Amino acid sequence: MDKPNAITVFAPATVANVTCGFDVMGFAIDAPGDTLELKLTDSKEVRIVEITGDEGRLPLETERNTAGVAVQMYLEHLGIRQGVDIRLHKQMPLGSGLGSSAASAVGGVYAINKLMGEPLKVEELLPFALEGERAACGFAHADNAAASLMGGFILVRSYAPLDVVRIPVPENLYITVIHPDVEVPTKQARRLLKEQVPLRDAVTQWGNVGGLIAGLMSNDYGLIGRSMQDVIVEPLRSTLIPGFEQVRTAAMAAGALGFGISGSGPSQFTFSEGKATADQVAAAMEKEIQALGFTYQVYVSKVNAQGPVILPEEVRLT
Amino acid sequence: MDKPNAITVFAPATVANVTCGFDVMGFAIDAPGDTLELKLTDSKEVRIVEITGDEGRLPLETERNTAGVAVQMYLEHLGIRQGVDIRLHKQMPLGSGLGSSAASAVGGVYAINKLMGEPLKVEELLPFALEGERAACGFAHADNAAASLMGGFILVRSYAPLDVVRIPVPENLYITVIHPDVEVPTKQARRLLKEQVPLRDAVTQWGNVGGLIAGLMSNDYGLIGRSMQDVIVEPLRSTLIPGFEQVRTAAMAAGALGFGISGSGPSQFTFSEGKATADQVAAAMEKEIQALGFTYQVYVSKVNAQGPVILPEEVRLT
Repeated sequence: MDKPNAITVFAPATVANVTCGFDVMGFAIDAPGDTLELKLTDSKEVRIVEITGDEGRLPLETERNTAGVAVQMYLEHLGIRQGVDIRLHKQMPLGSGLGSSAASAVGGVYAINKLMGEPLKVEELLPFALEGERAACGFAHADNAAASLMGGFILVRSYAPLDVVRIPVPENLYITVIHPDVEVPTKQARRLLKEQVPLRDAVTQWGNVGGLIAGLMSNDYGLIGRSMQDVIVEPLRSTLIPGFEQVRTAAMAAGALGFGISGSGPSQFTFSEGKATADQVAAAMEKEIQALGFTYQVYVSKVNAQGPVILPEEVRLT
Repeated sequence: MDKPNAITVFAPATVANVTCGFDVMGFAIDAPGDTLELKLTDSKEVRIVEITGDEGRLPLETERNTAGVAVQMYLEHLGIRQGVDIRLHKQMPLGSGLGSSAASAVGGVYAINKLMGEPLKVEELLPFALEGERAACGFAHADNAAASLMGGFILVRSYAPLDVVRIPVPENLYITVIHPDVEVPTKQARRLLKEQVPLRDAVTQWGNVGGLIAGLMSNDYGLIGRSMQDVIVEPLRSTLIPGFEQVRTAAMAAGALGFGISGSGPSQFTFSEGKATADQVAAAMEKEIQALGFTYQVYVSKVNAQGPVILPEEVRLT
């Protein structure tokens, strides 16, 4: 079988942190996500030839683009000099807290690995995606990139060495994500964080981390909900998100198990038991966001178990 | 059936903290533990009439004794004026890091509840055991008391409100505990702790908490071992335990999955896969402790799933 010389992939958006799990938990959702077209060329260069959906805000220079860096690092690691043209179609807002830069990096490295005949396993691609994020953003959240790459719910047990664990989730767990059109730059959200935290709060946080993992693995929806508390990051970051408490109150009143910031925000997410509840929660959150006067996007899905997918010819973007 | 007017119970020792899970994780072991005899009397008073095995160090005043306070709080809660004579047989060293005060409180409240005809469920007894510990020690570790009372491996998801979750453990998980005869007073061990911890270390810790819970629940011995790391408390408390690093090195070389301080020490514990390995680990740890010149006690068991038990007449201590 001939290797294809072009491919289009979709890499899913992700919700990182997941309340108590700052920097260690994340999961993929079905939509939104980024679509990337990669085409092998004779040029020996990795080029970003087009970006759509970013309102002109993302850099076309390969070295400053998450997907460009990820693909380049991958090829350098394998010692391959190969020209690649990348078209990046952003299908989610930038600075949304939905792992936009991670999805682009993941899509890029997943696609180039397919084009090279899959010399590396999917989980071996994570370091290149992280390098992509680091080059573009100054730091890398493995919680976003690992979840987008591997699909499912992931725990980053350790960063050094990198140790990513996939956590099974209940069959009937549904996610509602709402993104109000307010930008919270990740760097600003990170600057709010304190370098030192009270031991007492850290203990509260890791009790909840243990509870959330246990709840997910034992299908205990009550425990999942009770564990979705963040006493360290949310009190600081929620101040950047207009109407955060109102939206939370509305979501919980509509039946959500728990509510939190997605990544560094402004997107907010909930877990619910069953799609009907997740839809009701979506409606309740929409109503609050509308009352606040923001436009928004809302998404309801299960945890996306699949990660990146190759898109068939007929649905490729051109 | 007549209610008995006397009962003897055994309450197991416990390993709290379990490396990364400071103040939120604990489990019971088969031995050692405390034995308590409770006898109903006409005196209307809760009295500690005898304590053995403590070398005269524990207070006989009811208000200063963990078992005495626990039994008294229980009776007050139920509005019962009932005389009780308690004989407390300490079968583990004090200040060992094996939850000695928790075992006495748990044994007391478990026994009085049996004598009263079990008006409360076992898990409802926890607050009285905690009051007992608090009165005697100035603070209460729910991780010790809950593990001794409920048996098994427990996660204290939250202290306020108290939310204790039982975590299933792999069938073939064995524990080795060694107690060198060096006293580390819990209060001194707690004074070493810092009120503030670096966020970076807290993130490392809760990644490991998530990993340990996930490893236990998925029978992933490798993940259990990798997660048994404590970057916050152990670096401080291990300085109070002579030869800590040598004992760790010997235990790990003998095949332990992971190694840590039991409670606030000086007891040290390991997890191993299989009894044969746990026995080898015990031998390796003993050799180091002997070389250090300490006497010691060593225990190998599974996680004790049972919690307190009523002892039959013939084995009751007199």
